[in-house]
Amino acid sequence: MSAASVVARLREGLGDRVDTSPAALQTARADKSGHAASGAPIAVVHAASVADVQATLRIATATGTPVVTRGAGTGLAGGANAGAGEISLSVRGMDRILEVRADDQLAVVEPGILNADLNAALAEHGLWWAPDPASRAISTVGGNIATGAGGLLCAKYGVVRDAVLGVDVVLADGRLLTLGHRTVKGVTGLDLTSLVIGSEGTLGVIVGATLKLRRLVPGDVCTVAATFPDVRTAAEASAAVTASGVQPSIMELMDAASLAAVHALLDLEAPAPGAAQLTIQTDGPAAGAEADTIADVLRGAGGIVAVSHDREEGERLLAIRRSMHPAMETLGTTLIEDVSVPRSAMPAMFDEIARVERERGVTIPTVAHAGDGNLHPNFIFDAEPDEFGVVEAPAYIWDAADDLFRAALRLGGTLTGEHGVGVLKRRWLADELGDDQWRLQREITRVFDPQGILNPGKVF
Amino acid sequence: MSAASVVARLREGLGDRVDTSPAALQTARADKSGHAASGAPIAVVHAASVADVQATLRIATATGTPVVTRGAGTGLAGGANAGAGEISLSVRGMDRILEVRADDQLAVVEPGILNADLNAALAEHGLWWAPDPASRAISTVGGNIATGAGGLLCAKYGVVRDAVLGVDVVLADGRLLTLGHRTVKGVTGLDLTSLVIGSEGTLGVIVGATLKLRRLVPGDVCTVAATFPDVRTAAEASAAVTASGVQPSIMELMDAASLAAVHALLDLEAPAPGAAQLTIQTDGPAAGAEADTIADVLRGAGGIVAVSHDREEGERLLAIRRSMHPAMETLGTTLIEDVSVPRSAMPAMFDEIARVERERGVTIPTVAHAGDGNLHPNFIFDAEPDEFGVVEAPAYIWDAADDLFRAALRLGGTLTGEHGVGVLKRRWLADELGDDQWRLQREITRVFDPQGILNPGKVF
Repeated sequence: MSAASVVARLREGLGDRVDTSPAALQTARADKSGHAASGAPIAVVHAASVADVQATLRIATATGTPVVTRGAGTGLAGGANAGAGEISLSVRGMDRILEVRADDQLAVVEPGILNADLNAALAEHGLWWAPDPASRAISTVGGNIATGAGGLLCAKYGVVRDAVLGVDVVLADGRLLTLGHRTVKGVTGLDLTSLVIGSEGTLGVIVGATLKLRRLVPGDVCTVAATFPDVRTAAEASAAVTASGVQPSIMELMDAASLAAVHALLDLEAPAPGAAQLTIQTDGPAAGAEADTIADVLRGAGGIVAVSHDREEGERLLAIRRSMHPAMETLGTTLIEDVSVPRSAMPAMFDEIARVERERGVTIPTVAHAGDGNLHPNFIFDAEPDEFGVVEAPAYIWDAADDLFRAALRLGGTLTGEHGVGVLKRRWLADELGDDQWRLQREITRVFDPQGILNPGKVF
Repeated sequence: MSAASVVARLREGLGDRVDTSPAALQTARADKSGHAASGAPIAVVHAASVADVQATLRIATATGTPVVTRGAGTGLAGGANAGAGEISLSVRGMDRILEVRADDQLAVVEPGILNADLNAALAEHGLWWAPDPASRAISTVGGNIATGAGGLLCAKYGVVRDAVLGVDVVLADGRLLTLGHRTVKGVTGLDLTSLVIGSEGTLGVIVGATLKLRRLVPGDVCTVAATFPDVRTAAEASAAVTASGVQPSIMELMDAASLAAVHALLDLEAPAPGAAQLTIQTDGPAAGAEADTIADVLRGAGGIVAVSHDREEGERLLAIRRSMHPAMETLGTTLIEDVSVPRSAMPAMFDEIARVERERGVTIPTVAHAGDGNLHPNFIFDAEPDEFGVVEAPAYIWDAADDLFRAALRLGGTLTGEHGVGVLKRRWLADELGDDQWRLQREITRVFDPQGILNPGKVF
């Protein structure tokens, strides 16, 4: 069926929720990965209800039209990019909080609510939802679930998979499924909730979620910042903190290039050449004592250490880490990568990054969520944006990334700790999964979506 | 193919690992649910290696013979019961710990190791694996994973799903898949590890697992025991503890019939008629202060409270709860049920249990993991065991259980919090999942097992 006929059917069913303005179509081509789809989608549907999503998918199934679900478009792997012949289905407008239960420590939400908006509302009940991707001010809960997002607090407070009790999903044919439980425990049948978490739009459209909440943590937040002569020493110091048995809420590592770029951006005195930094926070009733213990461990590991028991001063120390992305933009265009390795392999992974830089003549400033072994190497390059402001990474950058991915796999790690596969990493997926598992996963998507209209060309 | 031919092929491939002794075949018919399969399996294969499991499944696939995987046979839903025409595949003998990494807080184990044996070995490294089903001294890690087991500590320390990084699984056709990660974070493709957890032998045979460990919790263990005039007041008191924001490690509730039976068994003074009890433990550096806070909450909720800061005295208090199963055996034969409801619905669920007792003239002593809303109603009946010592629950007991299951679902709960569906609850599964999800789950099992030879007749 022609694109025009599909759009006509969408308009008939969904009226002015169907947007074909050039600006909307161009926006739907790209997320924040730097990658954009070839061509533009045929329409953006701004769904306002579950019924809108169902209507869109029924038309998509009847016409064999691919559907790419989109939240706030902050993904870093191209998973929400919609291209020629596709419908971009935005659930950003479905942003209500339907229920908050302090006694059951759960909330029921629509997918389009921003993570930070949800947490602002939950704070009034003394509650919070722990997943805290760095994008939390601009990314949606539905997108966090669809990508299986992580964040800074994961080593102590878990990832999205640990914080979702159930999801409501519309299948390719428009049927609505309610998966999971409202209970803490529940083992009836297969755990399809976990299967949908991180499935990047390939199994269905998430139209609602029952979230597992925590009570706000009472007590202080203390912050420890420590500089080390080089990144390997800093990585070993972070391992010593983990080995000490004290569990920080946040443990961020910045290598020399990252630290220097942020200091330049913020007009701070330049760090010593080669110096790397750990920024660590503790929280809860024992935060002060834990921060002091960590400070001792870091000093023993060769760090120059500053400790703050003041929450605001701590935020100033952490601001250096939070300025990473703007600092990278001052260096050029960035491909943000996301490998994860066993914690013990962090020093070796930094060695591998240095090797790739040296052998391939590329600059890869790297920050890491050191408490859980998740590294974000930033590949810097120069490139002109195309007419839509989108910049593609050149081949030599992808070759360097390939080298780095394979090193992570050799160290027992994974291609992506928290960003997802999307379009950017699908060519490496079978290397990690093996061909048998890759095919099995593909067949599972076909059970949910026999026609293959949900986010085709993504992940697999 | 005849059973004799299948057994001959098994013997050819696996030699004396194939056991057709009458005792072994009878044992394989039943777990600890009280239910047994009709007839006996054709053979028990005592696998000693992954290769043994693969060889068994290749023969099963070639001959179209059903395979029922078995660990220690301590399940409570009949999931491991093998009957006529089936192979019972025991992985109990695969019980090695292959790797313990304190720095990465993980262990790699074979499936047949007992939970308690694993934890004894991990304690030497200052580590533990948190899942603690009441059966932990006699149940295997593989069985804990296959059923998605829970336990007493779940509200604070999570369930099995939260404590497994990866699983190695042999598919029906004998192929070995390595699922999951050795990293804390990882979102490459679909989360098949979670799908296998709780799949009760329907997707593949778990032959290895990478477990997420915790450091042993430093500090004290304190215990609070409180009696209340009736079970509803006790349930409301447990909700008040949860609402206070203090997180106990254990919070167990016993109703009047349970408490009276245990006191009789242990020769303790009879409790006041109708009295119910909460037994609560706190752990970690703040255990003492938390126990005192909880004691105040319980007194405010109408309880008569005893607090112990002594670990051994605490174990004595908790021994009353741990004597539940032997105490039930003094009352008759027991069908142990396992509904879970949102924590706020606990008082209402106890009202429903009282209603079912009253309307149907049955006795249902009930204990609950009150911190997470998981109740174990024990239906008591008199019945003669069959020639193999197996006792089937009579129809009027199942009718009462049906009444109770439907009440749990009405309250937003689930059929099974931690025991699984097995054979005992499959007739209610579609009631909870809905027909669409039930069919979808069934189709997913077919992707793993096209012939349907893995644990047929279980779950679905």
